[in-house]
Amino acid sequence: MTLHDPAEVSARLLSGDIAAGARAIRWLDDRDPRGTTVMAAIYPHTGRAQVVGITGPPGAGKSSLVDALLTVLRQRGLRVGVIAVDPSSPFTGGAILGDRVRMARHTLDPGVFIRSLGTRGQAGGLSRSTDEACLVLDAMGYDLVIVETVGVGQDEIDVVALAHTTVIVVVPGLGDEVQAVKAGLMEAGDVFVVNKADREGAEATARQIALMLHLRAQARSGDGGDVPLLRAVATKGEGIDALADAIAAHRAALESQGGFARRSGRRAREQALALVRDALAERALALAGEEVLDAVERRALDPHAAAARIVAALAPPIRRSVA
Amino acid sequence: MTLHDPAEVSARLLSGDIAAGARAIRWLDDRDPRGTTVMAAIYPHTGRAQVVGITGPPGAGKSSLVDALLTVLRQRGLRVGVIAVDPSSPFTGGAILGDRVRMARHTLDPGVFIRSLGTRGQAGGLSRSTDEACLVLDAMGYDLVIVETVGVGQDEIDVVALAHTTVIVVVPGLGDEVQAVKAGLMEAGDVFVVNKADREGAEATARQIALMLHLRAQARSGDGGDVPLLRAVATKGEGIDALADAIAAHRAALESQGGFARRSGRRAREQALALVRDALAERALALAGEEVLDAVERRALDPHAAAARIVAALAPPIRRSVA
Repeated sequence: MTLHDPAEVSARLLSGDIAAGARAIRWLDDRDPRGTTVMAAIYPHTGRAQVVGITGPPGAGKSSLVDALLTVLRQRGLRVGVIAVDPSSPFTGGAILGDRVRMARHTLDPGVFIRSLGTRGQAGGLSRSTDEACLVLDAMGYDLVIVETVGVGQDEIDVVALAHTTVIVVVPGLGDEVQAVKAGLMEAGDVFVVNKADREGAEATARQIALMLHLRAQARSGDGGDVPLLRAVATKGEGIDALADAIAAHRAALESQGGFARRSGRRAREQALALVRDALAERALALAGEEVLDAVERRALDPHAAAARIVAALAPPIRRSVA
Repeated sequence: MTLHDPAEVSARLLSGDIAAGARAIRWLDDRDPRGTTVMAAIYPHTGRAQVVGITGPPGAGKSSLVDALLTVLRQRGLRVGVIAVDPSSPFTGGAILGDRVRMARHTLDPGVFIRSLGTRGQAGGLSRSTDEACLVLDAMGYDLVIVETVGVGQDEIDVVALAHTTVIVVVPGLGDEVQAVKAGLMEAGDVFVVNKADREGAEATARQIALMLHLRAQARSGDGGDVPLLRAVATKGEGIDALADAIAAHRAALESQGGFARRSGRRAREQALALVRDALAERALALAGEEVLDAVERRALDPHAAAARIVAALAPPIRRSVA
């Protein structure tokens, strides 16, 4: 029962084996070539899970909300995978989000699979790891895959924006700057939740979101004017049934309009392009050579000229059609 | 006096002309080819300004701190450029950070130049725009260029981590999750400021940072153990002189060890590589072709296999040395 063979890992993963799933995610994250073999084997079996991105500013209580949502979804008989994206530091060496400890009780439930991914590495690396983990969980047969991120950086927003359903969590009483950060998320939201709705200022926050949704609907010529705006108190389990309903309704609406497959496709396309960018960036680094970069450092050559020189050396005239 | 000629823009910019600087930044941001011409002309005149990154979690009061710092730096006779990186939304159409309005009073001062950059575009785009704006401000002769970002996303952290001097701003009383986000910044900090230090919990926050700095110094075998940890109340101007002193001391320390030129060089090198990545990503998109991506969408071809096919078509066997 050792898990070293990509064919065995693929087969066991497709039958829902948790150890095999974890192994595949690790291979993909480590860029082990066996991950590529597994991906080829499992990819035709993906595209069924609803990917639900959950994001919002720090302190919005996203982890508590996910925890409460897991309980409700399990009561409804759904199998759920969770990918928690942790801001981590090379210095602390890992995730330190205490809130997530609470979620741990779900790990005894075979219908729930939780994985944390760090944000180590450079911009864009997060999308890659998250997309790949989503595909693994999808192939394992989970009905929903929840991706939770802190929605402040562009990178993190990109991750959830590619979900089938994006849930934006806000809370009353965060400062001006946090409200501004939130604005960067408004465009991506399919469902909005005012969490900690028993706190002072909750109604003002809800009105603010409602106004922004109204403006957004106008900018889109009316499309999306019926976006759900929910209230919840995650720590008391209040409003969570309505959230689960809204997520299910969004899937149903997507499916009735062909949007479910379209969003899956867009996600896969972006993922392929991200892999291309990664591979080319590596190639560029190898190619760049110390001479050109040294000239930039000495200020003998400007960065634009250096980039043009490196790209010219790497990229030949474009050949069309590589299919 | 129209500013359409790159040679004229470059010459006027090098003599400190604000309109010319703004025009160059816009050209570079819009990827107008005239920006590339200006960059070639001004690049040999860069490398003198101290680039100071200021970041921290949302709500830490960074804009107020920058505002107060500007006042002190101007009193010391220094000319200062500021690049404020705003989380912006395609929906709201721009920056909405009310705090920054306060900074506006400095715009009447010819010794201060403030520019806002949006985070529109995809991951990595932020670094490019910011680096280029820094070079323009550097060439204009500002003694310091302050780059202010919300330090949560990897992209935003990457931006400030390449500064000569990185100032991390924290505040008492933010929740667990915000503390975790903060941990992602610990590695990058050269100076730490507990802002809103008159609030309850300020000393506990300072102790927490001191502990993390102690652990960091141990992990680096003692190096960096003397990192300044300051208290400030930006809105009252308290602690700002000490911050200006710490920034000046950090420059002096870097210069005495050759670190100033080393950090400038590393920044320029990263910038050239980022431009290469951008150019190659564009080329890859043009090359990818609909057939391969359609196959991915149909789930007939997995993303890894698709990426390998596109890269093979684009990148020939590596030729060494392109200088």
